[in-house]
Amino acid sequence: MMKLNCDLGESYGSWVAGMDEAVMPFIDMANIACGFHASDPDVMAKTIQSAVKHGVTIGAHPGYDDKKGFGRRSIPHTSSEISNLVVYQVGAMMGMCRLYGATVEYVKPHGALYMDMMRDEAVYRAIIQGMAQAGFGVPLMILAKVDNSAYQAIADEAGVSLLFEAFADRAYTSEGSLTPRSLPGAVYHDPEQIIGQLKQLVMHGSVISIDGTELRMKADTVCVHGDNQESVQTVHLLRQVVDQ
Amino acid sequence: MMKLNCDLGESYGSWVAGMDEAVMPFIDMANIACGFHASDPDVMAKTIQSAVKHGVTIGAHPGYDDKKGFGRRSIPHTSSEISNLVVYQVGAMMGMCRLYGATVEYVKPHGALYMDMMRDEAVYRAIIQGMAQAGFGVPLMILAKVDNSAYQAIADEAGVSLLFEAFADRAYTSEGSLTPRSLPGAVYHDPEQIIGQLKQLVMHGSVISIDGTELRMKADTVCVHGDNQESVQTVHLLRQVVDQ
Amino acid sequence: MMKLNCDLGESYGSWVAGMDEAVMPFIDMANIACGFHASDPDVMAKTIQSAVKHGVTIGAHPGYDDKKGFGRRSIPHTSSEISNLVVYQVGAMMGMCRLYGATVEYVKPHGALYMDMMRDEAVYRAIIQGMAQAGFGVPLMILAKVDNSAYQAIADEAGVSLLFEAFADRAYTSEGSLTPRSLPGAVYHDPEQIIGQLKQLVMHGSVISIDGTELRMKADTVCVHGDNQESVQTVHLLRQVVDQ
Amino acid sequence: MMKLNCDLGESYGSWVAGMDEAVMPFIDMANIACGFHASDPDVMAKTIQSAVKHGVTIGAHPGYDDKKGFGRRSIPHTSSEISNLVVYQVGAMMGMCRLYGATVEYVKPHGALYMDMMRDEAVYRAIIQGMAQAGFGVPLMILAKVDNSAYQAIADEAGVSLLFEAFADRAYTSEGSLTPRSLPGAVYHDPEQIIGQLKQLVMHGSVISIDGTELRMKADTVCVHGDNQESVQTVHLLRQVVDQ
Repeated sequence: MMKLNCDLGESYGSWVAGMDEAVMPFIDMANIACGFHASDPDVMAKTIQSAVKHGVTIGAHPGYDDKKGFGRRSIPHTSSEISNLVVYQVGAMMGMCRLYGATVEYVKPHGALYMDMMRDEAVYRAIIQGMAQAGFGVPLMILAKVDNSAYQAIADEAGVSLLFEAFADRAYTSEGSLTPRSLPGAVYHDPEQIIGQLKQLVMHGSVISIDGTELRMKADTVCVHGDNQESVQTVHLLRQVVDQ
Repeated sequence: MMKLNCDLGESYGSWVAGMDEAVMPFIDMANIACGFHASDPDVMAKTIQSAVKHGVTIGAHPGYDDKKGFGRRSIPHTSSEISNLVVYQVGAMMGMCRLYGATVEYVKPHGALYMDMMRDEAVYRAIIQGMAQAGFGVPLMILAKVDNSAYQAIADEAGVSLLFEAFADRAYTSEGSLTPRSLPGAVYHDPEQIIGQLKQLVMHGSVISIDGTELRMKADTVCVHGDNQESVQTVHLLRQVVDQ
Repeated sequence: MMKLNCDLGESYGSWVAGMDEAVMPFIDMANIACGFHASDPDVMAKTIQSAVKHGVTIGAHPGYDDKKGFGRRSIPHTSSEISNLVVYQVGAMMGMCRLYGATVEYVKPHGALYMDMMRDEAVYRAIIQGMAQAGFGVPLMILAKVDNSAYQAIADEAGVSLLFEAFADRAYTSEGSLTPRSLPGAVYHDPEQIIGQLKQLVMHGSVISIDGTELRMKADTVCVHGDNQESVQTVHLLRQVVDQ
Repeated sequence: MMKLNCDLGESYGSWVAGMDEAVMPFIDMANIACGFHASDPDVMAKTIQSAVKHGVTIGAHPGYDDKKGFGRRSIPHTSSEISNLVVYQVGAMMGMCRLYGATVEYVKPHGALYMDMMRDEAVYRAIIQGMAQAGFGVPLMILAKVDNSAYQAIADEAGVSLLFEAFADRAYTSEGSLTPRSLPGAVYHDPEQIIGQLKQLVMHGSVISIDGTELRMKADTVCVHGDNQESVQTVHLLRQVVDQ
């Protein structure tokens, strides 16, 4: 069954981000920030507790060490720095999870680290390599593409499994990439359109690109958002689609 | 046999602190900074590798989140914040250790967090509680005192074991506390005096206070320093004492 | 005429704090965070622009370097560190103000730094000393007390002028201190009560303590809050009182 | 007369970088870090005092907000973010200088910000624009090139003056750029070679490129280094060349 995953636990100190409590009951997988692009040990503790309470699977959501930029700025790193960056944050999340009898069940990089992972093979390999060397034994979540074979081959070689996520609220190009956010229409706001794309994914294993091409893609999970009242409302609707 | 423990891995980015490579071959236990008061994932990786290479036991050395103050400033925290602070850092160190087939074998708080732990029962309990709840299964290192029974009782109740460290280069008051660094003579620099105090600890299980009282104390380990050429030289001498 | 001052510009990166735009039109003096306990150069720029647009006087609002704790944790500093901490932040704010033809017209420390200033003479002297040595030529805002003579004497000696602020929404002890926030009734939420205390200040130059004593105090300004819808609503009412 | 400029004040908290005290007496211009890529208010205060004592001209040396990367990593910023980044740091340095009766007499960006300024017109314009809008009235130091006319035109238009710096210890390509540090021979270590390049600059207003081309360039100042004993020794020699 298609899982709904959502970025959560992105508050920091006294600053609050996202409507975590409102969205947690409706998702399957919580990508919890690890203290580098957002969060701190106390926010992590609270978010893990909430995930446990609602039976939500916990993923470590590591990002660049950049609170000012919320992990959305690509910062140059060597391969070993990328490995260390990810392993440190996953380890920290694993430690925090132990407080509540929980475990980290997957890793999903955040923001610019996620983008860099998808477009720069060196970054992707460094993440895979760090996870393999640490022997975390959990999958890495990456963007579902029409052809994931190159990513899969690298992951297979390292013995790291993958999870693929698609987007219900983003327009895809005919090549199967996400349309850049800077372009008009890149992000869907109409719940009907978002629900339509989710149904297409669930029922047909595909999305329809902006120019009408059907793109077949294997997706284990769909990324949803809990930033505001509107997006939480949409998650309620997506939950119903998935549950049916 | 008496173990020598040393704070290590306290560089940060391009800033170098301590002569880690020079002192590592002569110690038994490395208290490795976890990225809050000092260090970063790359320094941690390098330090763990060095410890593994030299067969040195690795301890997580968590501190307050204060690079500017090097963890030497006491920063107010609630009990749950203390627990989270420690568990996050121990978890991160555990993750990093996995990269090199190593494990965290004990926890020793750093600087002001260590001082606060020894003088404020709430801080001590919060550290014990965090370690117990996370189920790390490793001991906490605290300051050896003439009477450790109160600390031991709290640790026993939580199921956390303790390690006790003494100082060979610090003067003790007649009550068995360390003489404050601000007082003259609080820190020994004469290698003969330091060696003498270590021998007293190893052979008699005691230290002689500044007013000549013999203080019996159980010590598993003695804290040494690798900050500069002089202190590294002293460690060489202390190593010989312990090995004999 | 009594001025209304408000802490503003306490967002950070993508995290938003306070309803700055809503409250700015109704206040006289904006205490703008300087990037240490909150804010960053971009938030500062935006906040200064808004203050200039609404003709609001700009004050530098320096705090401890502690975003995690929002400047509310007392962090040990030497006197020269306090001076440097304040002068750096005031200088940064002065630089940013130049972008919009504005100037810093006063300094009000934030949170724990403000509290420490009021209760620890060394901290107060260090702030005064830094401002005097830098020759900023602007006043320092401190808490109005029944007897401010000791603060005034120190400021006079250094050639730094003072502004005194009172609170309309805080209960005063019979000694003229603010009732600690931890006690019930310390913070007023009833607009009528807040308005009453402001009227008392404006018309009689006094506040009535929790046990009914009339405390005479010289106050140049009253601190108001723009954190949420409710507090902004109260500011509208206080504005009317002051304008009448 | 050719001036020697040097990056200084790049310690942070308890971490020490550079041999500031050793090199200060031999330079003309100190590029003092402003707390973002390195330094803190206390290090700034100490460094300014030293510069004042030795009659060295003070320049603000702003960098990206990246202590981990020491400002050597290019971090994406919008133009207004670049302006704010620079103005904040220059303002802070101006404030700190007031403590010692000193003033900021020029601005030299650090590390990746300097590199980005030289290769990305948008970054260069943003720095110029920030300095112009703030009305600092001090020059910006940039890399001397064979043809600086494009940089000059932009600066002229904004009313900001420029200072040009050359390198005595770096190999130049035939196009007049610095040879990338990653290439062998990019950085000269032989004092004779460094002195030779300085003499060429002082006496002929040119440098000889790696392939023997004479590159004429206007240079107001040469960048020297105080990182270690060896580089300080070279500065002594360069001082003699300039003084003759």
